[in-house]
Amino acid sequence: MIGRKLTERLLRDAGWGELVLHDVVVPTAPRGARALTSDISTPGEADKLVASRPDVIFHLAAIVSGEAEANFEKGYRINMAGTWQLFEAIQRIGDGYRPRVVFTSSIAVFGAPFPEAIGDEFLHAPLTSYGTQKAVGELLLSDYSRRGFFDGIGIRLPTICVRPGKPNLAASGFFSGIIREPLAGQEARLPVAKTVRHWHASPRAAMGFLIHAATIDTARLGTRRNLSMPGVSVTVGEQIEALRKVAGEAAVKRIREEPDAVIQKIVEGWPRNFDPQRALALGFKADSSFEEIIRIHIEDELGGRIAA
Amino acid sequence: MIGRKLTERLLRDAGWGELVLHDVVVPTAPRGARALTSDISTPGEADKLVASRPDVIFHLAAIVSGEAEANFEKGYRINMAGTWQLFEAIQRIGDGYRPRVVFTSSIAVFGAPFPEAIGDEFLHAPLTSYGTQKAVGELLLSDYSRRGFFDGIGIRLPTICVRPGKPNLAASGFFSGIIREPLAGQEARLPVAKTVRHWHASPRAAMGFLIHAATIDTARLGTRRNLSMPGVSVTVGEQIEALRKVAGEAAVKRIREEPDAVIQKIVEGWPRNFDPQRALALGFKADSSFEEIIRIHIEDELGGRIAA
Repeated sequence: MIGRKLTERLLRDAGWGELVLHDVVVPTAPRGARALTSDISTPGEADKLVASRPDVIFHLAAIVSGEAEANFEKGYRINMAGTWQLFEAIQRIGDGYRPRVVFTSSIAVFGAPFPEAIGDEFLHAPLTSYGTQKAVGELLLSDYSRRGFFDGIGIRLPTICVRPGKPNLAASGFFSGIIREPLAGQEARLPVAKTVRHWHASPRAAMGFLIHAATIDTARLGTRRNLSMPGVSVTVGEQIEALRKVAGEAAVKRIREEPDAVIQKIVEGWPRNFDPQRALALGFKADSSFEEIIRIHIEDELGGRIAA
Repeated sequence: MIGRKLTERLLRDAGWGELVLHDVVVPTAPRGARALTSDISTPGEADKLVASRPDVIFHLAAIVSGEAEANFEKGYRINMAGTWQLFEAIQRIGDGYRPRVVFTSSIAVFGAPFPEAIGDEFLHAPLTSYGTQKAVGELLLSDYSRRGFFDGIGIRLPTICVRPGKPNLAASGFFSGIIREPLAGQEARLPVAKTVRHWHASPRAAMGFLIHAATIDTARLGTRRNLSMPGVSVTVGEQIEALRKVAGEAAVKRIREEPDAVIQKIVEGWPRNFDPQRALALGFKADSSFEEIIRIHIEDELGGRIAA
């Protein structure tokens, strides 16, 4: 989803030159972009990918949280070893080649117990294999950048909300579902308490982070090249109030509370709030409120129309 | 050095069963221990190593800081990929096998700027490839432990002081050299200002950490399995004053100040002091003072005798 939206945005903006999309499944490349398919964890594939010496590499990979937890071997092979092989392939070119590498990390590098708001000096303590693999990627990114092999920046995305498309099985799915489905006239299930607080960014804000990361003067980062992105911290109750303001009572009535102890427990281990001072000082911009996040979804995904 | 001292200590203590030493060079195994030599980064070698299903694995590896910085490929291959292959080999046995794994990490996982004393929630921000490789090892240790593949504990050792043996080319060498050489009647070179503060533990304290880590109830660790060990924070000036008290003016006169801007700059990026509350609460014990550190060296390495 992020790859597709980013491609559309880069094609719309001028001056990005040739665009190549790469995925392990055949990516749907919009007109104007070239699509490549391979598994970067296969020896030699990452070398082929960087042989054209791209100026900017967005590494958005790869195996999502739930799958990395269910398939231990695959998560490490693709998310950790695959990232290392990509970085190694860039390093092997040598010859003064030093692309910008934008690595999408995740707030999953953090794990409970947390302070009330997670600051820029809080430790990596992931509670999932996915978070571990992302944290390793961050460390490699910093060291390979320090050694001058590329010019890297890692951005820890908040949970993307409202995520377009069909409901999925991700434990975090309901954060988007309780907004997306009611706006489309569908019922949505709420498996956790309304007091659950979480950290959100719209897809539009996330595109802004990626573009800013690709163009920022990295000398301003110093040696710490991984940043928690700004976001909007709200409780589920506050999400629902924002939905009421934007779309009315009818929409809210489509949310069905159906507590799920398993999901409640998973979500309790997730970050609730951040104090991302470095990213803010470096010009990364969050959505202004959860209402704005809902309005962006209506504008960008629903053509301005919501269900009555 | 740590491997040799640990073996001697384990042989002296009762009840440790069969001892196997493994190194990439032929290890000098004391009587009562078996020696094995191989490169754990070679596929299959780690599997051979764990096939005998040891109850406790001390992973003390491997390529030291200076060499990992000078030889980028070798450091990653041995320190990072080698550690991963060892952990994978344990995981592959399956079958309920779940050894204790004691991983020696390093304060090199931290990098400036620091708070006055580094707490237990401070971020990984290594400024060397060695520190990066150790930080990756810590993350893998936590996740493989969480998944139940082994019962891991990572301990970040302070700089070991007084390190026995000959002077070496490590940037940290002088911390030991300014004590060891004068006690042996030799001249020592001091390349940094006396105001430089650093974090020390004697080899005897380090052995205590390793044994405690091998025997502690890890349920007390919770999900955060990597701990900064306690130590003694002193300036170089305080080290010299302690030497004066223990060995007199004649010893101190053997220290020759010879400023080296390169070493001064490296050392400025190193941690100065810690607040290791978790390790202290878990019963890890530091030396009581730098004077004690000197006395331990005289007792354990010099048979109680110092140069006049």
